[in-house]
This record gives sequence, C-alpha cells and structure tokens, in this order.
Amino acid sequence: MKNSKNTKQIAVAGNGLLDRRLFLSTGLKFGTITVLGSASHQLLSKEANKQSTIDPADPPWMHTPGGPFSTYGKPSAHEREVIRVPAPNSAVPGNGVSWTPLHLLEGMITPNGLHFERHHNGVPQIDPNRHKLLVHGLVKKPLTYTIKSLLKYPMHSQILFIECGGNSNAGWNKQPSRAQAGYFHGLVSCSEWTGVPLSIILAEAGLNKGAKWLIAEGADAFAMNVSIPMEKAIKDGMLALYQNGERLRPENGYPLRLIIPGWEGVLNVKWLRRLKAVSKPIMTRNETARYTELQPSGKARMFSFEIEAKSLITSPSTGMLLASGQGLYQITGLAWSGRGKIKKVEVSTDNGNSWTEAQLQEPVLPMAFSRFRIPWRWDGNPSILKSRATDESGYVQPERDELVAKRGRHGFFHYNAIVCWEVDEHGLLSHVYDKKNALDTGNISIDAGWD
Amino acid sequence: MKNSKNTKQIAVAGNGLLDRRLFLSTGLKFGTITVLGSASHQLLSKEANKQSTIDPADPPWMHTPGGPFSTYGKPSAHEREVIRVPAPNSAVPGNGVSWTPLHLLEGMITPNGLHFERHHNGVPQIDPNRHKLLVHGLVKKPLTYTIKSLLKYPMHSQILFIECGGNSNAGWNKQPSRAQAGYFHGLVSCSEWTGVPLSIILAEAGLNKGAKWLIAEGADAFAMNVSIPMEKAIKDGMLALYQNGERLRPENGYPLRLIIPGWEGVLNVKWLRRLKAVSKPIMTRNETARYTELQPSGKARMFSFEIEAKSLITSPSTGMLLASGQGLYQITGLAWSGRGKIKKVEVSTDNGNSWTEAQLQEPVLPMAFSRFRIPWRWDGNPSILKSRATDESGYVQPERDELVAKRGRHGFFHYNAIVCWEVDEHGLLSHVYDKKNALDTGNISIDAGWD
Repeated sequence: MKNSKNTKQIAVAGNGLLDRRLFLSTGLKFGTITVLGSASHQLLSKEANKQSTIDPADPPWMHTPGGPFSTYGKPSAHEREVIRVPAPNSAVPGNGVSWTPLHLLEGMITPNGLHFERHHNGVPQIDPNRHKLLVHGLVKKPLTYTIKSLLKYPMHSQILFIECGGNSNAGWNKQPSRAQAGYFHGLVSCSEWTGVPLSIILAEAGLNKGAKWLIAEGADAFAMNVSIPMEKAIKDGMLALYQNGERLRPENGYPLRLIIPGWEGVLNVKWLRRLKAVSKPIMTRNETARYTELQPSGKARMFSFEIEAKSLITSPSTGMLLASGQGLYQITGLAWSGRGKIKKVEVSTDNGNSWTEAQLQEPVLPMAFSRFRIPWRWDGNPSILKSRATDESGYVQPERDELVAKRGRHGFFHYNAIVCWEVDEHGLLSHVYDKKNALDTGNISIDAGWD
Repeated sequence: MKNSKNTKQIAVAGNGLLDRRLFLSTGLKFGTITVLGSASHQLLSKEANKQSTIDPADPPWMHTPGGPFSTYGKPSAHEREVIRVPAPNSAVPGNGVSWTPLHLLEGMITPNGLHFERHHNGVPQIDPNRHKLLVHGLVKKPLTYTIKSLLKYPMHSQILFIECGGNSNAGWNKQPSRAQAGYFHGLVSCSEWTGVPLSIILAEAGLNKGAKWLIAEGADAFAMNVSIPMEKAIKDGMLALYQNGERLRPENGYPLRLIIPGWEGVLNVKWLRRLKAVSKPIMTRNETARYTELQPSGKARMFSFEIEAKSLITSPSTGMLLASGQGLYQITGLAWSGRGKIKKVEVSTDNGNSWTEAQLQEPVLPMAFSRFRIPWRWDGNPSILKSRATDESGYVQPERDELVAKRGRHGFFHYNAIVCWEVDEHGLLSHVYDKKNALDTGNISIDAGWD
C-alpha cells in the first residue's frame, strides 16, 4: 500500500514515531474523512455568490439570525466541561486548589478563567483604591505605593509559567493516580504577565547593607508570607498588574501579585501588600512545616525554589481513547523549566527503549510553557508513551525511580518525573508507573495538591 | 536638583523623551509615593512570622475568609468598565462590531473575553457535533471533515493579530473622533491561535491545475463568504480550533475559524463550513460593494488584503489625564504589520519635530502585536504625542495627510495613519489631526466600524 510505504520512509524510530518535521505528506491520513457522493456534494455546493440563499438542508443556525454582541465573552455552552476542578481541603476551609484542565487545552497560553488556583484562606475581594504595598525593613526609606501610583511606572511583559511546588504530588503515591492529566499535573499554568520590575521599587526604597532576603506578604485572611532571596528578587521579580492583557483576576492576586519567574508558585505571592527587606529568612510556617521535606540523607530539603525541567504528554493521555483504531495520531504536550528555555523534548512509545525528538513550537521562551508535538502511527498493540524534557542548562527530566531514589519516600513537593501513559489493545490510555523498573515507594497516600 | 540633573543626562531628544533603556535610575520618580511616618510604619510592620495575627488596622478582607474556588474565573467587579463596547448597525439587525478597549489593556495578548467582534448576522450557536467543513471545487476529491476529525490532525500555534479592514475608519472623517483609543482603533486584537495548517487539508483534497483562489464561507445566517488567493492560503492559512489555549469562543468562530495571518479580518472567516477551490475570485458582495473603495485615480482599490504597518499610543491617550502634573510618565502602545515583524517604533512628543525610538517588548513576533514603551518627562506645556511604526519590509506608517493624499476622500478601509494625541496645559489628552498639515478631507461622516 502506498501510504504505509511513504510512512516507512520517514519513520525515525521504533513504534511508529515519525519525523517531527512531518506535517504534510501525501497519503498520510490523520482524521476521519468522507469522500462525498455526488448527491450530497451537489446539495452543499450551491454557488458561493448566491449569498444569503440558505438551503433547506443547511444547519438550523443558518436559518435564524445569531445572538447579540457581548461586552465580555464566554466559552460556548458545548465546552462546559472545560473547567478547572476545585479540590478544597475539607479540613481547612478556604484552603485548597483548583486544577487547570491541561489535557483539554492547546498552545502555550492558559486562558485567565482556567489558570490554576491555590488559596490558603479563600479569595479576598479587594478594593484596588484601598489596597497599598508597603516596602520596609532594611531600607533607607520605607515607602507605600497605591495601585494607582504603580500603574504609572515603567512596565515590562513576560510569558511565564507558574507551578505550585506541590503539583503532581500524587506521583509520590504507591499506586498511579487515576486522575486525568490536568487533574494530576494541572497546578501549573502559563500567562503573559505585565507589571513593574521589582528592582525599580527596591531601588527607590534603597536597600541597606545586609538586606539579603525579602519577605513578601499577601492581603488575604491567611496573610500568606514567604522569604525570597534578594538576589533573585532584584534580578527577575515583577510586581504584576496585568495577566494576558487585562488586570489580574481576583483568584490570581488582584490587584497586585509578586512574580518570581521560574520559582515555585508559593513565592508568587498574591494580593501583595508588604515587602520587607531582612538579613535572613524568617522561617515562616510556609517554609518550615511546608514546602520542606525530609530526604533519604536525613536532612531536610528546604528553599527548593527552582522548578526543574518537566514535561507531560497532554494528548493522548489517561482516560482518552484512540477511537479511530490503529493509524496516525498527533502526540502533543507541554514542557517547562525554571532554569530557562527548553532545549528538547523526546518522546518514546515503547516505554523508553527508544526516543525521538519532538517538534517544539516557536517561539521557545525561557521559563514559559513549550508546546511539543510529534506524529505517531499506532500499530494497534499495547504501548507506553513517555516524554522527557531537557532544558538549556543540560538538566534532563528523571525517570520516576531515579527521582524516588534521590528524594526518598517523604517526597511531597517538586515531583517532576517522566510520566507514563499506557495504551491498551483497545486504545484506552491509563497512567502507569514504569513497569520495568517499578519501585515500592512506600505506603504514602496523598491525593490533592494542597499541603 | 539631583533628579533633574540625572534625567538631563539621559534625555535623548526634545520634549522630555528619555532613553528607552532607562528603567532604573536613582531619583527618577514615576508614581505617587509616601514616605511613612514612624507611627503608621509601626502599625503595618508587625513581624512577618506572627502570621494569622491580623491587626485591627488591616483592611476588612483580611478579617474574614475569602471567597470560594471557581470552575471558570471572571474579572474583578472593580474592573467592570473594562469591556468591549458594542456598536450595532441599527439599520441591519445582527450587523455591527464591538471594540476591544485597547487603552485599558497592557502586554501583547488580548484576553478572549475582550477580542473584538464583527458580525454580519449575529453569533450562531453551533453544535460542534453537527458542524462540518466541506472542501470542494477544483479538487481531485471533495471531502468533508467533522470537528472531531480535525482535532486529530497535526496542529501548530501562532500569536497573531486580527484587524478588521474597517478599523480606525473614523480617521477619514473631517473632524477628529472623540472616542477613546480602543473605541476608535480597537477592531484589532491579538491571540495565540492553534489549529491545523490549511496546506494539509488542501493537499488531502488534491488541488487541480487552475485552482488559484479559495472561496471560504461561514455557517452564520449571513453565509459570509470571501475569495482568497490560493498561494497565501497554502503558505500561511490555518484552520483554527483554539484561541489562547482554549477552544474558540462563539463570537470568534466556534467551532472552526479560518486564519489568514496578517491579512484583513474579513478573510479570517468565522464558523467556517466551506472551502471551494476556484480559478478566479467570485466577486461576492463582500469584495465588490464592500472592502473595496474608489481612489483618486478613479480606479477602485480591491483585494487590498495585507494590513500595512500601524501603531497607536494606548496610554496616555485621548480622554486620559496626566493627573500628577508635570513629571515622569510611561508612554506605551501597540504596533503591528501584516508584512512581518515590527522593526522599530518611534515616538514624538512635539508633533513630529523630533522622534525617539521606543523599547520594543521581546519577543517581537511576525504579524503579532508588538508592545512599545518609553519614559517621558512632561514639562507641563501643551504637547502632541505621536507614534510611528516601521516594519521589517521597510514600510513606514504614514502621516494622515500623506494617506489622504494617496487614497482620497472615499477612503473607508485600511486607515493606518499616525495618530496624534494632544496634551493640553492641564494634562488632558484629546485626539487631534496634525495641526501643521491639516487637510480638509471632505464632508465624510462615518462613526462606526461596520460597513
């Protein structure tokens, strides 16, 4: 058959992975296509210039005028299942997360309505005219800023992911999670953030010698606070006022959020009200009891700020079905690293025996989502799909057994192991741990993203 | 005074424009800053590690738990004025536009809820399970695609502006528009679009010799249709399924929109149902009675597809007040070109006597919005602000008198002249035509963006 011959010529590895640059080749069929009979063809092919003469056979929405203009748009009612799924911590009201449905999205940008949430005492409804930012501590002049005043400062924009340090923590569990990809790994989202470089504000206040850390505090009822190394704050910090073009949403910190690019989500303090320059971290509950963990060495892992390279196949992924049976599919997913740009993403469809480089969508930006895609011909046999990210620092996303060996059984944060999706003989996908190298990771049972 | 001395050293042109790389210089003050007395300082500076001990003086939202998680977020109630403003054509129900409030946004991305609208017979509510795309005409095999089948194809993503050919057409009027910047120039928005390269679908159908044009038709009650040169369709066309990560919104073509990057908005057919390969344009009403105009030569300007370079200062802009009086402000705006990347944007604060290059936000992408910014010290005197874009093809955005001289008094589409914002002695901005070179452009009176 001509098709399979063509395909063979461009297959670059085992198990049907095709060259990533293959986006057009005669005979490659991706979708369900109907070659029309002449009758139905005639019916649909009325001359284009006879406009406004809608055929009786045309769909109902062509027979009646459409709906009105709207001042602020909403998704189609047919997309009502594309939501972030809340997982509140029932023991602590107002504490919990909601997950971005990564498996239902495409591209690099997360729309604002679907950016993941992580709250410690709910979403405060802040009046921007009454909100103030205080800059104090080891500074020459303590200063306050209103939102109005910050809006006059020079701004910059950056497309950045934010990932909760607790994202994907079900990966530490003994049994693989049954949640869909976004409800397992979706405490990460990517937006274009715009705001005032933090360095400008810190320079205005004037840092004293010895101001090595910055305490950031939110104006929620939890007064959420963290310690941040001053060097990073000056280098990359942003006082964000806009997300994807519009002012921040309440659940993402309206009217002011601290952005610390590439570092764990908790540092990106929402509803920011206070920045205090200090000589050392203040060891708040959020950096001692939480966001800290015991390692196999017996030492605690603390201030593990940086998000290491990670990737995930979002489609096809657990719970999905390869409904057309054997044939061509697109494998696509996301990769990101707090250390800079993603250098490459490799995909395996044979449980890691062979790897093929996927296409990275341009532009590849530092500390942002990189979308990867690669065509795959499924031969109808059971298969295990994996993706593996490498960032520009040379760091390679680890297999799960490597990560568990290094970090031990008390892991909770910064789970970034390679994810395995098993395809069964019916084309149904489910999450599995690497079968060759399966490890007993202990009787840990954590299901939600909150701590 | 130390401040003004510093500033003088970095001023690069007349009328207070400062070096675009100036984002941090000791003594430069952009906002309204309060140096705190020790009493209020004490009150706010409770130790950060005494968390959850909220002071009585803290704002009310820190005293009560915040609101719940949400499955799909919305903007703050305090931002309720940030809307797209509908301008329906009262003579033709369902026909009209709504404007993106460009003057209230920042960055490059337009959030989906605020992407401009242009409808000819309202917004159809389409069931994606019943929607089909027909590819026919001069093809080897007429084919239909369901949305489900298209979702299996290889995709790509691109951040692109879409601009209505009729955007800014109030600029042809004899009197300057009094509308705010977005309600005058906001029939342009920028999103990350994701979909199937059109070239794949056309190759599957197999184009016959002589298939030089493509007729695209929408499934709205207007059956909106246009002719597109096949060469461009193959080179750049996309069958878009996602906008800013999520599936298209109904008013932006759900479930399928044709994207023709860099060309006028009408070609980006929403609710796409039909692509017919033909030998020549079919001269529909949309490309003869509309989107066509008589020129000074007596010839009609037709098929003027490409959007030429254009820019606009979004802040400060007409209707805004420089409320802090003389001192430092950030001038910011947007530039875009259908021919590729923006090469530079120059800003003038003296009605074009002198120009200074603004900072372009990276990444600068082809056929996308480029955000520009430059600091400006207003001396308190009346001033006229302008921006001028140059694209990578070398095309320079024209002054209004040049454009009118070239295109004549019957202009309606593709208005891309330099925009002038006059600052009066009180700091209030309003739209003016260039006073030096003012032209009587005839008694044309067009106010809305629809045709």
